[in-house]
Amino acid sequence: MTNTIVSSATREHIISLDKPFTIIGERINPTGRKRLAEEMRNGNFETVERDARAQIAAGAHMLDVNAGIPLADEAAILAKVIRLIQSFSDIPLSIDSSIIAALEAGLEAYEGRALLNSVTGEDERLEAVLPLVKKYDCSVIAISNDESGISEDPDVRFAVAKKIVERAADFSIGFERIVVDPLVMPIGALSQAGAGALHLIRRLREELKVNTCCGASNISFGLPKRHALNAAFLAMASGAGMSSAIMNPLHEEEMVAIKSSDVIAGKDVGCTRWIKRFREPETDSTTGAQIGARGARRRRRESGVG
Amino acid sequence: MTNTIVSSATREHIISLDKPFTIIGERINPTGRKRLAEEMRNGNFETVERDARAQIAAGAHMLDVNAGIPLADEAAILAKVIRLIQSFSDIPLSIDSSIIAALEAGLEAYEGRALLNSVTGEDERLEAVLPLVKKYDCSVIAISNDESGISEDPDVRFAVAKKIVERAADFSIGFERIVVDPLVMPIGALSQAGAGALHLIRRLREELKVNTCCGASNISFGLPKRHALNAAFLAMASGAGMSSAIMNPLHEEEMVAIKSSDVIAGKDVGCTRWIKRFREPETDSTTGAQIGARGARRRRRESGVG
Repeated sequence: MTNTIVSSATREHIISLDKPFTIIGERINPTGRKRLAEEMRNGNFETVERDARAQIAAGAHMLDVNAGIPLADEAAILAKVIRLIQSFSDIPLSIDSSIIAALEAGLEAYEGRALLNSVTGEDERLEAVLPLVKKYDCSVIAISNDESGISEDPDVRFAVAKKIVERAADFSIGFERIVVDPLVMPIGALSQAGAGALHLIRRLREELKVNTCCGASNISFGLPKRHALNAAFLAMASGAGMSSAIMNPLHEEEMVAIKSSDVIAGKDVGCTRWIKRFREPETDSTTGAQIGARGARRRRRESGVG
Repeated sequence: MTNTIVSSATREHIISLDKPFTIIGERINPTGRKRLAEEMRNGNFETVERDARAQIAAGAHMLDVNAGIPLADEAAILAKVIRLIQSFSDIPLSIDSSIIAALEAGLEAYEGRALLNSVTGEDERLEAVLPLVKKYDCSVIAISNDESGISEDPDVRFAVAKKIVERAADFSIGFERIVVDPLVMPIGALSQAGAGALHLIRRLREELKVNTCCGASNISFGLPKRHALNAAFLAMASGAGMSSAIMNPLHEEEMVAIKSSDVIAGKDVGCTRWIKRFREPETDSTTGAQIGARGARRRRRESGVG
């Protein structure tokens, strides 16, 4: 299977269908978080640090870092946040911005091989972002939309992804450095959004052989009991060949679904990680431990299953 | 997609990938239930009736009925249980026995087109069971093992399923009346059991075009937090093309996973069933209602997801 290698100064992480599903923490993002946006604008990174540590404790393999604050110096803030996180953790980062100068400032500040988030199939974006991917020897999330917008037809989105992979090849960037986001639509608005995404993920895996990534919660937008839908979607997408998601690792249902799908897909050989996580309640108070403890309590209630 | 039609005297049910995943209640089975076995042996069917009603209330589309009690007149008991259930419910039944005479007694007692459970790829079984399927115009679960046992290789199990479908054709029984059980092994003993089952389900769907069914809980045998593993397996198997499972519909995690996978797969158009189930707590006290109520409570805790 295709390996996408990301790293910090001292730690390497491989996104691959041969490896456990990669969890990219989404919390360091001021979009829709007014207080966090204000803090970041004022150079206060206490919430950023707390959110980073909590996501790491909960089992994130990577963190996405976004500093998109209106009318702020996004490039400078993004670089600061990256340096801050790299000062206390070796977790690899995804550098997330829609502004090219911010992406470059982030890459300049970053130690290691980052995941750049993101490029689209728009020619202008390709011409601006791919040289950065080349120069900084990093990988990049490729969003499968272009000048014409987001097609509802997954086969059109496939064609856009193919175009991005081909354009990257022109820059001598291998397909293993392109992580395609199939763009999952809300199923409440579009009944075929889930089936279409699964179909596209399978094609991306079988034909382009790229790794894939998506936002885990968009599918359930506007519906009740969202965590259950997200959990089923993540398990099904993982089964279809999705290799990573940008998500909140503090959400128990989604995390359990991913860990379960790792077991089912044979990525947790001997089920050792599963057994370790759920056999014994852990004793510290991080979120990861909470999951373990809840699992154990539930297990006792459930004896005699089958 | 292939439609497998089962019915009672007055209700038809279609097992199909175009339809919601079919839930076949597993509880009417004395295997491993000593008290139930004793009751059934003594002609007391109170627990049977209670279990049947509870599974129907919880959302089962069909019930599996097994009367395998050592040293009892299985054929007579099975026929009695079938008549009893058909006296108060129109739910279609799966008639489950390893004894040919019991299968025939069950078919004789049954009103409608049953699902016979089961035939294997063993020549002797094929020669005994297929004539019954033909005579009673029913469908049959085909278990993908033969004289050589259960192969660990999913492609060998595929070949056995293919043999059963071909042998059925010799009896003018169409492939739409064969529901293949891919035989899911415990993943705790065999790390590739899940990946192998998903691979086999996909082949059965794409190449033999048959509907499929499995026991939902075998995958997690011996592991902690079994319901979560079963839930992820059911979602992934549904995504790969499994159309039904024999399972306990009173288990909330598995049921929510199946209903979620119906939404994700686009089988719950407009998400109307999902919204109805989880938006408003239901008021009666059946298990189905309990799920709805729990869903609503959880939803309130979760406001602000995304």
